[in-house]
Amino acid sequence: MNHLLQSQINELRSGDPRSLARALSIVENHYPGWSDLLKGLFPFTGHARVLGLTGPPGAGKSTIVDQLARYYRQGNHTVGIIAVDPSSPYTGGAILGDRIRMQEHSADSGVYIRSMATRGSLGGLARATADAATVLDASGRDVVLIETVGVGQDEVDVVRLADVTVLILVPGMGDDVQTIKAGIMEVADIFVINKSDREGADRTEREIRALQSLAMRSDGWIPPIVKTVATEGKGIPELGQSIDQYQAYLKTGNRILQRKIQTWRDRLIEMLRDSLLEMTVAQLGEKRLSEYAAEIAAHKCDPYTLIEEIIRNVGRTREAQC
Amino acid sequence: MNHLLQSQINELRSGDPRSLARALSIVENHYPGWSDLLKGLFPFTGHARVLGLTGPPGAGKSTIVDQLARYYRQGNHTVGIIAVDPSSPYTGGAILGDRIRMQEHSADSGVYIRSMATRGSLGGLARATADAATVLDASGRDVVLIETVGVGQDEVDVVRLADVTVLILVPGMGDDVQTIKAGIMEVADIFVINKSDREGADRTEREIRALQSLAMRSDGWIPPIVKTVATEGKGIPELGQSIDQYQAYLKTGNRILQRKIQTWRDRLIEMLRDSLLEMTVAQLGEKRLSEYAAEIAAHKCDPYTLIEEIIRNVGRTREAQC
Repeated sequence: MNHLLQSQINELRSGDPRSLARALSIVENHYPGWSDLLKGLFPFTGHARVLGLTGPPGAGKSTIVDQLARYYRQGNHTVGIIAVDPSSPYTGGAILGDRIRMQEHSADSGVYIRSMATRGSLGGLARATADAATVLDASGRDVVLIETVGVGQDEVDVVRLADVTVLILVPGMGDDVQTIKAGIMEVADIFVINKSDREGADRTEREIRALQSLAMRSDGWIPPIVKTVATEGKGIPELGQSIDQYQAYLKTGNRILQRKIQTWRDRLIEMLRDSLLEMTVAQLGEKRLSEYAAEIAAHKCDPYTLIEEIIRNVGRTREAQC
Repeated sequence: MNHLLQSQINELRSGDPRSLARALSIVENHYPGWSDLLKGLFPFTGHARVLGLTGPPGAGKSTIVDQLARYYRQGNHTVGIIAVDPSSPYTGGAILGDRIRMQEHSADSGVYIRSMATRGSLGGLARATADAATVLDASGRDVVLIETVGVGQDEVDVVRLADVTVLILVPGMGDDVQTIKAGIMEVADIFVINKSDREGADRTEREIRALQSLAMRSDGWIPPIVKTVATEGKGIPELGQSIDQYQAYLKTGNRILQRKIQTWRDRLIEMLRDSLLEMTVAQLGEKRLSEYAAEIAAHKCDPYTLIEEIIRNVGRTREAQC
């Protein structure tokens, strides 16, 4: 390992927020040395508890995450927050929200917040988030909170890479429950009904229970339902305890290892997907790719045959011909 | 081309719904011969207008799609609908919804409806949808309607592969507009405010206009806003006309070719992403992948170095060592 990388890692491990910010930028943007940095950090990972939280827009997810951060700070744990914001450059929402929330915690260096926007077309968001969590873990943060908005496959992929996955719902979502139950219900280790002082909280609870009765988790865990009013801090200690209980449950038997193996299997697939595409597109070159697209658009070339030939030539110098 | 494939293509081209269903199953599930079938169908594509429609849950998307299908049937065009439903096996929602809607159009063989659920972890939904649209196009359907629920990156990726992309909103979405504007606003060629008899329709229109004023499309098109009450059929002819206008606009200059090239570039990336991963995972084998994951979970192996080695060995017989 070269001297520069070694000092980079040492600085990061000392807890310095600026070197943390720098390392996260390197990894997120794939700046030169990003891969060596992650390799160098990997031996220092595995200490942090990584929690993934998601829910539909308006469920109060950010408030819960902020309250959880406070809860862990009271227990003297350091916290890193990764706010995955599917904003585009169009809105700049990620950066704005980041700043507002940073101010709130600015007096406390024990809370570090990082916003991540959607990666480019080549890079998967789930992978980028997991890499950022690796950096925060290696930097010595005790708790890493990954929050994301939404209940689509993207969000599922982001939060499932955490040690514990929390799904945040609100009463009276009506038809939305129909959409939410698909996909994300299977990955939630803990349900939160936030804004539970509103009408319909009991109904939402019954709906979750009804859906649970249809699904049997392979690990035998029955996800608890925690009711919160996050703006008032109500239910946050109970949420913290539920997280502890699930992690304690994982420690019985071989479950924690089984879960980690499953997570790494999924993560390897994500990494492979991105890296293979990155390598192949680099090998082809943007120009050639556009030429292929033009020939297909003009119906001079059949894309299915072309892709097969490109795949056959991966790692070789031969070029696929339309 | 072998005889079986030739007769498969002939049957499909004759408009037979059963052979259409069979071809879609082959392509969707990657049954043997799926790739040859797509190659054989490609020369017959490019005739259909492919429309992509999306919007948040509860925006009345299915109703609009059904009304649009009726509108095109009145003009004597044949219609194919691909309903992309991110349901998991857990709910079986896709198949149920499919059946209910099939009944409604069952007297008319000019409307063919196909539901697609989420693909497995290796296959991208956008790619699978585009392949299904290719089959419907080659089968001679005049209009292909691709509908999907949601406004995440997945849904953007699905509908952006269409010739025309329609975003369906409803009045009074409150905070949701904040989420929706991110990402999907750039790909919408036409906005629909459905349920426009509800309070707040004008406000939603102003919000869309305000967001539009921030973004300049590279093709110079200013997406129109169409107000509908889909349950009563109101605004559907206007939506049809807006679609015509956008397609007429595309035909001026070289815009239609430019858009097709861009679409094919994106689609090639999707196809490469899936095919590369499929090939590499097949080459590694599930067992080896799980072994790697176990070694990483036990901290015996660094995933970043491993991935680099796997990538280096793609297409070779050498195996990556942890």
